[in-house]
Amino acid sequence: MAELTHLLAQRAHEVQASAIREICKLIAKPQIRSLAGGWPDPATFPVADLQRIATDIFQQKPALALQYTTSEGLPELREFLADWLGKKEGIHCTPDELLITHGFSQGMELTAKIFIEAGDVAFVGLPTYFGGSGACQTFGAELVGVELDADGMIPDLLEEKILAAKKAGKRPKLLYVIPDFQNPSGVTMPLARRQRLVELAQQHDLVIAEDSPYRDLRYSGEAVPPLMSLEPSGRVVYLKSFSKVFCPGFRLAVVVGDADVIRRMVIARQFEDCCTAAFGQYLLYEFCRQGLLDRQIKLNCAIYTRKRDCMLQALDQHMPTEVQWNRPDGGFFVFVHLPAGMDAEELLHEAVDHDVAFVAGAPFYVDGSGSQTLRLSFAQSEPAVIEAAVAELGALLKAKM
Amino acid sequence: MAELTHLLAQRAHEVQASAIREICKLIAKPQIRSLAGGWPDPATFPVADLQRIATDIFQQKPALALQYTTSEGLPELREFLADWLGKKEGIHCTPDELLITHGFSQGMELTAKIFIEAGDVAFVGLPTYFGGSGACQTFGAELVGVELDADGMIPDLLEEKILAAKKAGKRPKLLYVIPDFQNPSGVTMPLARRQRLVELAQQHDLVIAEDSPYRDLRYSGEAVPPLMSLEPSGRVVYLKSFSKVFCPGFRLAVVVGDADVIRRMVIARQFEDCCTAAFGQYLLYEFCRQGLLDRQIKLNCAIYTRKRDCMLQALDQHMPTEVQWNRPDGGFFVFVHLPAGMDAEELLHEAVDHDVAFVAGAPFYVDGSGSQTLRLSFAQSEPAVIEAAVAELGALLKAKM
Repeated sequence: MAELTHLLAQRAHEVQASAIREICKLIAKPQIRSLAGGWPDPATFPVADLQRIATDIFQQKPALALQYTTSEGLPELREFLADWLGKKEGIHCTPDELLITHGFSQGMELTAKIFIEAGDVAFVGLPTYFGGSGACQTFGAELVGVELDADGMIPDLLEEKILAAKKAGKRPKLLYVIPDFQNPSGVTMPLARRQRLVELAQQHDLVIAEDSPYRDLRYSGEAVPPLMSLEPSGRVVYLKSFSKVFCPGFRLAVVVGDADVIRRMVIARQFEDCCTAAFGQYLLYEFCRQGLLDRQIKLNCAIYTRKRDCMLQALDQHMPTEVQWNRPDGGFFVFVHLPAGMDAEELLHEAVDHDVAFVAGAPFYVDGSGSQTLRLSFAQSEPAVIEAAVAELGALLKAKM
Repeated sequence: MAELTHLLAQRAHEVQASAIREICKLIAKPQIRSLAGGWPDPATFPVADLQRIATDIFQQKPALALQYTTSEGLPELREFLADWLGKKEGIHCTPDELLITHGFSQGMELTAKIFIEAGDVAFVGLPTYFGGSGACQTFGAELVGVELDADGMIPDLLEEKILAAKKAGKRPKLLYVIPDFQNPSGVTMPLARRQRLVELAQQHDLVIAEDSPYRDLRYSGEAVPPLMSLEPSGRVVYLKSFSKVFCPGFRLAVVVGDADVIRRMVIARQFEDCCTAAFGQYLLYEFCRQGLLDRQIKLNCAIYTRKRDCMLQALDQHMPTEVQWNRPDGGFFVFVHLPAGMDAEELLHEAVDHDVAFVAGAPFYVDGSGSQTLRLSFAQSEPAVIEAAVAELGALLKAKM
């Protein structure tokens, strides 16, 4: 439609295709050994339970489960989750502070939609998952990256950049963080750092979007309280995807926020998708009610622990000494730093020729840096494939040293 | 969160709650006889087929159907629909001109997102479904209402208002229409009028968003070609919901547009919901593949024909002569005009006291008019309930004459 391009809104020109989705096309060959996608292992899907529950739903409440439902989400599901989040995470909330969304992305999009005014500054990790930064950008946010260290986002740097934004006459508005097993870096923030970020948000009047998809997938170490439990006044919007602990096939997530924030999201979604599909919500609710969610989390942790250990062992064994990586306590990702001057994008093209895929790190850096980094996922492939792919990568890199 | 209100974006203040959802709360009492909601009759849901197909999917492709999927939508579903739309509607398209969305609303939101620049003028019916106008408003469109007559939107008035907008230095950008059994008016545009609207769009460089949720539900008269089949150059975005001919419980719809428009929507949705839930797409695809969609449409038409006839008969029998309404050839709605000076909102409150619900017409009028109109849906309630509710309304109105 060359002839209609002039009719497009500016935002349609600005938003870029997600790097991962583009890579997916590049690596779509059957023999590929993929460390790329952040998709969960289908072996974790609770197929038999879902089939049994689905049959019950078709027989017992088809008129409800196949119909439209409320924009807020199934009341019984919100009630269960409010209770569960209180007990498990110290996030004490009522059902009217919860919204069921069509995946994390919708919750993040609604957060950006109700809070971001064009020109507002949103602070994100360097690196960060671009689902969060991209949603802010859609509504005209200026993205400012804040470096991470082994404990996550560095508060002193954040403060510096908030002050710089203010000095430049800009409005610091939102802080996007993934405190547990961050995507892509794999790092987890200790308590003191979480507290400091909350203080900075309070001091400088920021909204915090806390993205928590991997939190339940901890394989070692002790859980650290979510930022939301440290700042219960409403400044934090907590976004919890069920794609990694249930399955992605129904696109289910929950947003927790101040009741007024949730109400505004409910109104905003009425012109976006009206409601999350009812069937999946009934399925997840029954799954939860039957006590299967906690069991599922344990099961998934067992499967992914083995895969993480396999990847770390393979890295120890095959990587040249010049290459560095972290040892995540959970989640899906190991983040790799190549020696200065090396380019991960270049390595990716060579790797694909050898039937190995990963995600080059640059798209996770909103400042255009990160060209010497790469993200390896141990979630999707079998241990033997992980081992072989890492060995191949190690050989490619050794040849370059 | 009184203390966070100052952090909200302007758009969070501007968007109003959908009138229908607010009414839903008002009328949420078990004994209510509802002519309000536009929800389909659960008796139409193909429960047994869906249960059988779901079981097959759980057994045969759980790793695909419970996983993330492509942003474009399931390739086999898009292929089926491209073929089906070509044969049935004269909409000749390829799978890359199709996008599967989480309901009509998402397709409309994406249309507005990629086309509407703040201040652009969007033309909508007086009255119109506010899902379409609301999506445009979210992105800053100025809404201009164009009166309908018994043949739908009046082209001469549209032209007048386009010219007036241009004269005022504004940019006419989008025309939102529901050509078949319009919500809320129930009217259908004849061919000549569709052609004239297409010509006006071409002449004045407008995008047309053609919303087609009820098109398959025709109970009398002959089908009229969709605008998209009359303007295949890419200027029309065709939005087809499956909520009324399949079921709403999986939130499934398809958008047809120029391949470049679709590609931009695919990119935009990556920061919105990534993809439509896979499970429902596999379910709909299998339903289509097994030839059940066309059978389902026939079945639904039979059920709704009886209900429409029941409502029209009840109106003839019970309404005072001063009240006017139309006789729709399809869809869900009869639109009622009260005598000048009467207020439908007032009538609604009285009716609710008598356990009868409908939707007052004013929210469908972007210019604030329509206070003497109301929308009656014959879709959801049983014929006996429709009869009793209309009789009650007639008695209430007769008492006022």
